[in-house]
Amino acid sequence: MAIKLICLDADDTLWHNMRHFEAAEAALQRMLAPFASAEDVRARVEATEMRNLKLYGYGVKGFTLSMIETAIEISGNALTANTVSEILAAGRDLLAHPVELLPGTEETLETLSERAPLVLITKGDLLHQESKLAASGLGDRFSGIEIVSDKGPETFARVFDKFSVAPEEAIMAGDSMRSDILPALEAGAWAAFIPHHIVWSHEAADAPNHPRFHQINNLSALPSLITRIDG
Amino acid sequence: MAIKLICLDADDTLWHNMRHFEAAEAALQRMLAPFASAEDVRARVEATEMRNLKLYGYGVKGFTLSMIETAIEISGNALTANTVSEILAAGRDLLAHPVELLPGTEETLETLSERAPLVLITKGDLLHQESKLAASGLGDRFSGIEIVSDKGPETFARVFDKFSVAPEEAIMAGDSMRSDILPALEAGAWAAFIPHHIVWSHEAADAPNHPRFHQINNLSALPSLITRIDG
Repeated sequence: MAIKLICLDADDTLWHNMRHFEAAEAALQRMLAPFASAEDVRARVEATEMRNLKLYGYGVKGFTLSMIETAIEISGNALTANTVSEILAAGRDLLAHPVELLPGTEETLETLSERAPLVLITKGDLLHQESKLAASGLGDRFSGIEIVSDKGPETFARVFDKFSVAPEEAIMAGDSMRSDILPALEAGAWAAFIPHHIVWSHEAADAPNHPRFHQINNLSALPSLITRIDG
Repeated sequence: MAIKLICLDADDTLWHNMRHFEAAEAALQRMLAPFASAEDVRARVEATEMRNLKLYGYGVKGFTLSMIETAIEISGNALTANTVSEILAAGRDLLAHPVELLPGTEETLETLSERAPLVLITKGDLLHQESKLAASGLGDRFSGIEIVSDKGPETFARVFDKFSVAPEEAIMAGDSMRSDILPALEAGAWAAFIPHHIVWSHEAADAPNHPRFHQINNLSALPSLITRIDG
């Protein structure tokens, strides 16, 4: 079986992402320390995010709005304009931080692009994902860029169709079991799970027992995995 | 010259949009009435939006964040948690309101779709635009859906290329001189300007003196304009 299309997640697969969300959440915990424990703040902000997900979707802007909503819930009438300003600033920092590639990203994409066309599949705020890709300097490596509101099996099926490959000729690599791995497998493709040390609970799921599922330690291991699959 | 591709804007071209933003802005003006005049609030929120545009992009979530930022600027330490809650609620209303089609939209799209493939080209929050299209029931009319972070000549050139038409075989219809009309003309296409009675200052521009520019009163007039162009 020859892999003819290589699909890649972006956040925490090509560049750092969760560490910035963690920093924003830590800042929120400090701001709300007079009112609630760090653990409580974390649980409440995650609950707010989940409640708002259908309306806000993924991405920094919705996360910022959810942080503000959580601050109101937790501090009530004691909420100050200064705290709201700080949350807005934390959100802006999340949107504006420099893109830091994960180790080996550039070399690995070069190697991979010699084997098959690469497609980036990412979710989040449209402009923000475009901006990060532009800042990464990796744009030219990709034959396709798919910024989507969510990743389901139909997302992958549509991409495979667009590039005229059968599902079993495609592989998806990423750090999210829920968004990258399970829907790609369901669509009939191969999947390479590259765990990241910070996992957003929403994206976590058990590793599937599936013949096309593989786990690798980092992106640099993807070319040799593809060689093994190509067999 | 036969038109082989019909591109359409969504907000305030197919369905109501600006009236909801106006309602949110009016609510903000009422909340901030103790601190500033309605005119001042409007000017400040527009200035905040423009300042944040490069970071937030278009759409309701960025607008909500800009309303909160403006409220802090205007009311300072007198800002209450209740006001912030009300702004969040106004933003949620903007995301959740039912889609109301403009008069004649369904019939006109049916007529247009018999002449050439239709492509929807819209900017804003990805999930929100997808949700509105789904709620509109119009999705099946379109051969292509392009939700973009901004509309420039290159956006239109890419769409024409994707559908294998020359620019002069395509027409773009919409209510924004800045986002729909001028970039489509620059890309070499025809443009049908359908003015809406509420205009966001950011989207306004003088009507161009251009041989492929046309102005019509409503979407229902588009089929006969295309007949005239087809000559």
